[in-house]
Amino acid sequence: MNVNQKCINQLRCLSAEIITNAKSGHPGVALGATTIMYALFKDHYFYDVKDHNFMARDRLVLSAGHASALYYSAAYMFNFGLTENDLKNFRKLNSITPGHPEYGVTNFVEVSTGPLGQGIANAVGMAIGQTMVASRFNINKYPVFDNYTYCFAGDGCLMEGVAQEAISLAGTLKLNKLILLYDYNNITIDGKAEMANSENVAKKFRAMNWNVITVNNGNNYFFVTNAIARAKKSKNKPTVIIFKTQIGYGTQNAGKNTIHGKPLSVEELNEYKQKFGIENPYLLTKEIKDVAYKTLQRNNLQLEKWNNMFAVYKTSNPELYKQLNAFVENKSIDATKLLKDDVIAQNLSGRDANELILKELSSKMPRLCGGNADLVPSTKVYIKEGGDYSAQNRRGKNIHFGIREHAMGAVCNGLTIYLNNPTFCSTFLAFSNYMIPPIRMSALMNIPTLFMYSHDSYKVGEDGPTHQCVDQLGQLRLIPNLNVFRPCDTKELLGCYNIALKDKKPCVFALTKQNLTNISADYTEIQKGGYILAGDFGEVEILATGSEVELALKVKNILDGQDIKTVVCSFPCLEKFDAQAKEYQDDVLSRGKLLVSLEASNDNIWYKYIGKDGLKLSIEDFGKSANGSVLDDYFGFVPTGIVNKIKKILKN
Amino acid sequence: MNVNQKCINQLRCLSAEIITNAKSGHPGVALGATTIMYALFKDHYFYDVKDHNFMARDRLVLSAGHASALYYSAAYMFNFGLTENDLKNFRKLNSITPGHPEYGVTNFVEVSTGPLGQGIANAVGMAIGQTMVASRFNINKYPVFDNYTYCFAGDGCLMEGVAQEAISLAGTLKLNKLILLYDYNNITIDGKAEMANSENVAKKFRAMNWNVITVNNGNNYFFVTNAIARAKKSKNKPTVIIFKTQIGYGTQNAGKNTIHGKPLSVEELNEYKQKFGIENPYLLTKEIKDVAYKTLQRNNLQLEKWNNMFAVYKTSNPELYKQLNAFVENKSIDATKLLKDDVIAQNLSGRDANELILKELSSKMPRLCGGNADLVPSTKVYIKEGGDYSAQNRRGKNIHFGIREHAMGAVCNGLTIYLNNPTFCSTFLAFSNYMIPPIRMSALMNIPTLFMYSHDSYKVGEDGPTHQCVDQLGQLRLIPNLNVFRPCDTKELLGCYNIALKDKKPCVFALTKQNLTNISADYTEIQKGGYILAGDFGEVEILATGSEVELALKVKNILDGQDIKTVVCSFPCLEKFDAQAKEYQDDVLSRGKLLVSLEASNDNIWYKYIGKDGLKLSIEDFGKSANGSVLDDYFGFVPTGIVNKIKKILKN
Repeated sequence: MNVNQKCINQLRCLSAEIITNAKSGHPGVALGATTIMYALFKDHYFYDVKDHNFMARDRLVLSAGHASALYYSAAYMFNFGLTENDLKNFRKLNSITPGHPEYGVTNFVEVSTGPLGQGIANAVGMAIGQTMVASRFNINKYPVFDNYTYCFAGDGCLMEGVAQEAISLAGTLKLNKLILLYDYNNITIDGKAEMANSENVAKKFRAMNWNVITVNNGNNYFFVTNAIARAKKSKNKPTVIIFKTQIGYGTQNAGKNTIHGKPLSVEELNEYKQKFGIENPYLLTKEIKDVAYKTLQRNNLQLEKWNNMFAVYKTSNPELYKQLNAFVENKSIDATKLLKDDVIAQNLSGRDANELILKELSSKMPRLCGGNADLVPSTKVYIKEGGDYSAQNRRGKNIHFGIREHAMGAVCNGLTIYLNNPTFCSTFLAFSNYMIPPIRMSALMNIPTLFMYSHDSYKVGEDGPTHQCVDQLGQLRLIPNLNVFRPCDTKELLGCYNIALKDKKPCVFALTKQNLTNISADYTEIQKGGYILAGDFGEVEILATGSEVELALKVKNILDGQDIKTVVCSFPCLEKFDAQAKEYQDDVLSRGKLLVSLEASNDNIWYKYIGKDGLKLSIEDFGKSANGSVLDDYFGFVPTGIVNKIKKILKN
Repeated sequence: MNVNQKCINQLRCLSAEIITNAKSGHPGVALGATTIMYALFKDHYFYDVKDHNFMARDRLVLSAGHASALYYSAAYMFNFGLTENDLKNFRKLNSITPGHPEYGVTNFVEVSTGPLGQGIANAVGMAIGQTMVASRFNINKYPVFDNYTYCFAGDGCLMEGVAQEAISLAGTLKLNKLILLYDYNNITIDGKAEMANSENVAKKFRAMNWNVITVNNGNNYFFVTNAIARAKKSKNKPTVIIFKTQIGYGTQNAGKNTIHGKPLSVEELNEYKQKFGIENPYLLTKEIKDVAYKTLQRNNLQLEKWNNMFAVYKTSNPELYKQLNAFVENKSIDATKLLKDDVIAQNLSGRDANELILKELSSKMPRLCGGNADLVPSTKVYIKEGGDYSAQNRRGKNIHFGIREHAMGAVCNGLTIYLNNPTFCSTFLAFSNYMIPPIRMSALMNIPTLFMYSHDSYKVGEDGPTHQCVDQLGQLRLIPNLNVFRPCDTKELLGCYNIALKDKKPCVFALTKQNLTNISADYTEIQKGGYILAGDFGEVEILATGSEVELALKVKNILDGQDIKTVVCSFPCLEKFDAQAKEYQDDVLSRGKLLVSLEASNDNIWYKYIGKDGLKLSIEDFGKSANGSVLDDYFGFVPTGIVNKIKKILKN
């Protein structure tokens, strides 16, 4: 047996060992795809274990996150810093080897995966990021940014719509340094994948402008590594390598779906290890260590070459090097200074103000980029003069994702991580629910993807209930570790940007289509997330957000005129308000005897502030196709209607 | 000019007229695809205007819902029951011509559309439904169920992941009576579709086992109608007809993205009408009326033929006819009788109990069917002995959707409508957020799709935070007109089924992976959605759901033992509780001085019941990869931990 086969057997048994030890995991995939992972780590994947050099290193995304046992085992074998103990703690509390790979938990993990399909879109985002920086800073003989993005995926990932969206986009964008390693075992949890899927995968990828390589025996090391080598030479197309493999290779249930979720019994494991001649999978023989050492040398050599090249680059291209430094520098930016007072004074709509801010921010934050799911004229989420990103213009800052909201979110997550900088994406707020999974992933990973949604209420009007928000704001606010902004005017929007830039975590911006009057307080107040805007103490206290704050002020005017003193509070960011000291919160919430919440949404969070005896003015049912102002009446979101409701309560 | 061209011009001008009159709409698509819609209505679409015969009529899904002006105009021209006044009320409050087609609002509209891509998946569901009934009741010479399902879609629909998932599934399932009319104008809102999409559409469809017909001039009536005629002959593949069209045909902005959202000005409209020689688009000339009349005759003749055929079918196949009647009959079923007491007594997990119920329900409800997104062994949402649906077995009741949660939901919506009966679909609760859009659509349409989610909390354990629910329950409860069930045991689950069967609206079932002890009260109480389970009055009142109800009882035991009288209420369905009389609600919620909510979720709705001074015991942050019982401790969801928290509050 040659040494590669020995290493592969070791890796296979190691995966089986830690899965069985953890009493759970997904042995099937781990065992079937061993040769792919081995060849990738040994011969191709370029990683700088010591410094994680962000310019030089390749990116690897384990989209099939349930193959984590194999991933961790390979990382152990190839000296990525995992110990035997880490492997023994696989899937245990606070280990660095959780059930699915987690970004920020394990240092070589480039992105958290688990929900299928996401990883493919993340990888597309990372590959886009590489082209963006390469186009700016690579010059002849100096390929500073030249990394590959590898993505390991299975049948499940490929069936997901988010992956299909991302794959189509990647073909259009000609991301030739993206390599998708497709573990095609044709088995899913329910049985043969062909039950639900009969595609000609190769033809489908070709129709989407991909380079396609098929390896009929995914267990043959030589074929596998050669295929990856060929993929790396693709000139203007991303490559998929379709590796035909056998799930649960070597076990009694090889090729069967039953191996998907069930770990091997101790007896089966022992039999398995015996079959492959491995006594202790953790114990690497000198022969295997030598292989791993050679790989380390390959990596070190490549890094040394890169360092040498970069050293010359610095001195021979001082201007470009300066630009590069400026490009990657994380400057602190005061968002409240981005617009001039006379611009703020213009009573702009949320989307119009946002467009101006994006342009200014872009000039101070060169890595800022993002895109739209085909609604630029409506959402206006676009960096003016930033150019359109495309295969022909890698320097463009605006990406046209097509009508692919889900992939847009996940691609942006990959891009945010690659650029280590906020990226934005956009559609109508109503369609945020096409992309809850990537929003959740951004919050879980704590990365600053900015989700910018315009048309944030029923006021969009005639397009009807499918386009009108009711449940969306509340749904987004339920995602942990996510700032949801609903600013009432341009100043609040700037204040929200400041929160976003400081917090460096994912944020949602709910922006109006319609114009907003300037009414808000100073930036210190705004950044508390909720504050007293008008009034001091009174009978009534109205808590409002976004376009409803102006409505609340109108109601206050009427009530004040009738000697019912009213306080109005604006809540641009409930998450931020909740993070304030209890005393501050209590103070803000104790200014009126009757607490009223006013928001064109059905979010239940308001009960937290107004209590059982408060009055929740909200939209509890779906919208209607009609003019926005007609709907104001229909929903009772007009000053007189609200005044009457409040007075009725005060009477009782 | 021949008469067809005259009709097409009339239809074109009518669409333009009503869009301009409404001051909004999407003229681009409406004007570009006129010939397709005309040919479909005139020569192919078989509709029984009078009785909407569900067995005979074709189904038409306007997936590109923004082409509604064209759809309504065609329906007006071809006597589907729309009046001039209806057209003039296009996009106005409470009209039967809302901005996007709405199911239940306009009688010929088969499904609500608007969010792109959904309609394609809905159509796949309807086409599946047709094969299910056809396989059961069609016999030689008697094709009782023989309708086509037409789906009109644009570039936007095709880019969406949900559509790609459904298209792949349709090819695998060989749905040859499904015809996708693809209005390929290569223009989206942001500009040329090729900016974001460069696919070879025909090749991609062929790779997914579709029959592909291309019509290079989608404005040529003869080519268009012939293509549809050819599509109808497809033997074992669904057909896509790629119609190359020009957006905004005939306007000054023809072929440009600017025509997408902006209606014509009055001047442009007048120019347009002049160009096509139409003075008053509402006024149909005798020549046009004759064409429409002939179409009506075609429809009537086809219906007469069907009626005659069906009359013979009844008499010559009395046994099958009896079965058909039993099949389509809506019997009232008492779900609480579905399982025997000794089965209920077994302390089953939510998913295991559900599997038994599904089997029993299936025997009483022959149309019941549904499927899984590749998690049958885990969710156990499967009709045992119901068979697997496939191209080879159309009678199978269990559909393998593949790992395509989003399409699964939307396909089920189409199937629910076609069969006029609940259908179910399933995955882990964590992945419900891949399919929020179809859940929302089912709620908006008020159709009884049943979304069954297992693994309903962090207790799933080692798979980690991506697989553990935190936000999902609350997100689902925010969708209007949706029952969300989280039963605490088998009896509550049966009670929830009873609610579902009575309400005939969409429902979510959150089911445990782990076993549950039988603890619940009688069915009358359960069906109130929230009720007092144990105790009478006390210091503490705990409101809990699902697996946390048993935990609450353990807490009560400890507290009672320390002379702190505790009441436990179970809330299997908050929507149902909210629908009870105020007195009942107040009574249930006033049994303890300190109100405590206990649910392994972060839903804010509990503040509504416990108020500001209540104690919300919940999971506010993401989960962790670790064993479920380790996580009980980690999250403090153990009796002693909860007792201590409660006592601490009582002290203050």
